[in-house]
Amino acid sequence: MTAATQAPQNSYNFQATVDQVGPQIVGGQGVHISIERDGQVTDGIIDAITGAAVGALGHADEEVYEIINKAARQSTYSYPCLVSNKSSEELAKFYIDNSPKGVFSAALWCTSGSESNENALRLIRQYWLERGRPEKVKLISRESSYHGFSLGAVSISWNPRTEPYTPYLMDREKINIKIPCAYSYRFKKDGETEEAYAQRLIEQTEKIILENDPDTIASLTVETLPGSSLGTCPPPKGYLKGLRDLCNKYDLIYHLDEVMCGTGRSNPNGAFNCWENFLDPADAPDIQTVGKTLGSGYVTIAGILIGPKIRDAYLEGSKAIGGGHTYSSHAFNCAVSLGIMQKLKRDNLTANIFEKGNLMGQKLKSIFLSESNIVGDVRGIGGFWSIEFVKDRATKEPFDLSLNLAPRIKAIAFQNKVNIMAMPGNPDGSCGDRILLAPSFVITEQNVDEIVEKVVKSVNQLTEELRAEGAFQF
Amino acid sequence: MTAATQAPQNSYNFQATVDQVGPQIVGGQGVHISIERDGQVTDGIIDAITGAAVGALGHADEEVYEIINKAARQSTYSYPCLVSNKSSEELAKFYIDNSPKGVFSAALWCTSGSESNENALRLIRQYWLERGRPEKVKLISRESSYHGFSLGAVSISWNPRTEPYTPYLMDREKINIKIPCAYSYRFKKDGETEEAYAQRLIEQTEKIILENDPDTIASLTVETLPGSSLGTCPPPKGYLKGLRDLCNKYDLIYHLDEVMCGTGRSNPNGAFNCWENFLDPADAPDIQTVGKTLGSGYVTIAGILIGPKIRDAYLEGSKAIGGGHTYSSHAFNCAVSLGIMQKLKRDNLTANIFEKGNLMGQKLKSIFLSESNIVGDVRGIGGFWSIEFVKDRATKEPFDLSLNLAPRIKAIAFQNKVNIMAMPGNPDGSCGDRILLAPSFVITEQNVDEIVEKVVKSVNQLTEELRAEGAFQF
Repeated sequence: MTAATQAPQNSYNFQATVDQVGPQIVGGQGVHISIERDGQVTDGIIDAITGAAVGALGHADEEVYEIINKAARQSTYSYPCLVSNKSSEELAKFYIDNSPKGVFSAALWCTSGSESNENALRLIRQYWLERGRPEKVKLISRESSYHGFSLGAVSISWNPRTEPYTPYLMDREKINIKIPCAYSYRFKKDGETEEAYAQRLIEQTEKIILENDPDTIASLTVETLPGSSLGTCPPPKGYLKGLRDLCNKYDLIYHLDEVMCGTGRSNPNGAFNCWENFLDPADAPDIQTVGKTLGSGYVTIAGILIGPKIRDAYLEGSKAIGGGHTYSSHAFNCAVSLGIMQKLKRDNLTANIFEKGNLMGQKLKSIFLSESNIVGDVRGIGGFWSIEFVKDRATKEPFDLSLNLAPRIKAIAFQNKVNIMAMPGNPDGSCGDRILLAPSFVITEQNVDEIVEKVVKSVNQLTEELRAEGAFQF
Repeated sequence: MTAATQAPQNSYNFQATVDQVGPQIVGGQGVHISIERDGQVTDGIIDAITGAAVGALGHADEEVYEIINKAARQSTYSYPCLVSNKSSEELAKFYIDNSPKGVFSAALWCTSGSESNENALRLIRQYWLERGRPEKVKLISRESSYHGFSLGAVSISWNPRTEPYTPYLMDREKINIKIPCAYSYRFKKDGETEEAYAQRLIEQTEKIILENDPDTIASLTVETLPGSSLGTCPPPKGYLKGLRDLCNKYDLIYHLDEVMCGTGRSNPNGAFNCWENFLDPADAPDIQTVGKTLGSGYVTIAGILIGPKIRDAYLEGSKAIGGGHTYSSHAFNCAVSLGIMQKLKRDNLTANIFEKGNLMGQKLKSIFLSESNIVGDVRGIGGFWSIEFVKDRATKEPFDLSLNLAPRIKAIAFQNKVNIMAMPGNPDGSCGDRILLAPSFVITEQNVDEIVEKVVKSVNQLTEELRAEGAFQF
């Protein structure tokens, strides 16, 4: 044993800071949480990110406790590939019935967003085998994207944090084809309309499709509203429709990843799918992955929604899927999720978060962009917003990464009793440091004001610190 | 829409038989379950496989319901990479404290065995980066193995069912190096001792290591006791120690996958790790993946155990792990798992399953191998056993796969009210059709007799069917 193991061991968890336990959650009530750090408990922290955009309901919801208690007693574990259960069927039917008619016809439940996207890739592969087109193998996905932590999901992602895993990722020449991200704040040209920017991106994408022989391309995957990797950039007008049209033209599966942005987080109709902001039901995705708010943090569940085009190919083919995860369609998780989803619907909570989230975003935008500070952009939809930092609003130049803005703003926010997510910028300057906000669907106008006040205070503090250090001039 | 979508839709789940719901579990009590099939409920089926070797406790355990109820009320969701929790620390400490002293020093909890192995690969990659050896990238794993359903885990697996996904798997020449499986029933030569067979495998493995330049190899991954892919073949004497020695000699991470066979399923000391059957603590793995019985089907949890060698390299390096799964270290899942593990220990249930499981295996062995039937081999350890079918005991020739023995024996067993897993053989004849048994740790001697009686009856029925069809001559 080395000196390291002989030192007193503070943490037995192998994550985040390996030698230290770091902050620990010790309680929650509604939209507030209590965190212990270095032995000190801080109560009354407003949870503006709900973990990682996970919270639909608030913390310590008595009704959910009852749902959990009942679900435990009514569920019996089985391996669903051999013996299935009723809860998974009911949850699938509920999600399908609460999406526009005819868009989805089946679902598969698993335990994480990574697994959702891994299963989507497997199902896409089998789809082409069912159709007798084994040569359709290439997967198109975007630069600056995030689809999960497991290696298949990392392959279709790209961001600076995926680089160390390159030896284990799919080949960028032969299989794993990248298209540019859609990021109006930085890449829409001066004077270019949203529509013209979208059209330019679609033309770039079509060029890449043609260069890679569409007869060898399986699918195109994008996040409807990108999450941690780029910070909730709304797709420019016409972009998602343009991608749909390309998928139709070249016979590609259109896969939208809504793990972070979907399931009520940003739906304009009091329903669940984020793409309803941008697409008619006739242009819906063929496969959609979901997660996060589906279990609202109470249970670990995610899923894959299957359009009729996919299901039909299987029905006209083998009708069968071999194998699966031990915990696919987990009866208890599905039963709890169904109870949560029913409550979201009954209490109009997805309408509430769309309205209150947009209010939060507009307030932040109007405050930040009217004052001198480090905020370059405030963007988002419904319950999912980001604030990107720049050292010069005119040039949009990000701060030097060595300034470590992400952990600094996180720490300041913690002092000010607001829980946020902070992400570092890309080393090539293609995205600045940013914070993400994704509160629970139950927030009130008063909660919005509390979040806004504390976020503004925190960003202003960081602005002053950077000004004092000479890192920010204005 | 095609004709297929206009047909009445029986199932909304996209798994197994896509057009039909198939059998559904509708209840359970202890080691028995109730299954609904085509509208008919069958009660009193003895669960000899507990899903997919998942069950430690029995179904509908009142004490677990209390644990769940309490855990729900005491847990608050957080994203553990930013804000962790106490339950995950406690579960890690419990597993470490109940393993031989000094073997493990940290753990990471996730939601499935696939995720465990995906995380193991990521952690192995970072280990070599921490040590400044980025060129150590190759992953050695075995033919006829199973490590999960996600694409990284599929890469380090190999069985006939992984073939369709080859375009998405790691390169077999450059990264994903295979060694032969250890399978005494078929590949130990006549007259060869277990030790000599093990030695031959170790020599083959060393040759492959040398051919692939050990300075470019990161790790070696094997299932301690292989599960679904090969059917619980105990490693020949000295084999796992021989691999440990090779890992020491060539500086490779030794990764044992105990997702299916571990966490009390087959431990000789009333404890948890399967390798304790074969290895001294000084020869323990550097990384071990676990799952299944950790949550006993009540919650969806799995994990990665980290030896001091790995942890020290991180402590002496960056001390940090970037990112993670949304549901890593899930407080509720960890709290429920800890309650289950504490009950397993308090009630000596891992000692019980080791004794009763071995009794079950010996009874099956003595009955089957003394009579004329299709059984070629009965093998296993503790609570995890397999029965392999052959049409000729002398030549060990498997049945033709077109006979579909796996679904047939499964259906016969269902009629006889015993729940088993059945796997088809390998197309190249390197493994025959087989059934797997992995009952709950709470089984009594009476339950053992019930399983044995029903399995014997079912196999005899299939033997007679095959005899009538002329597929079995003796």
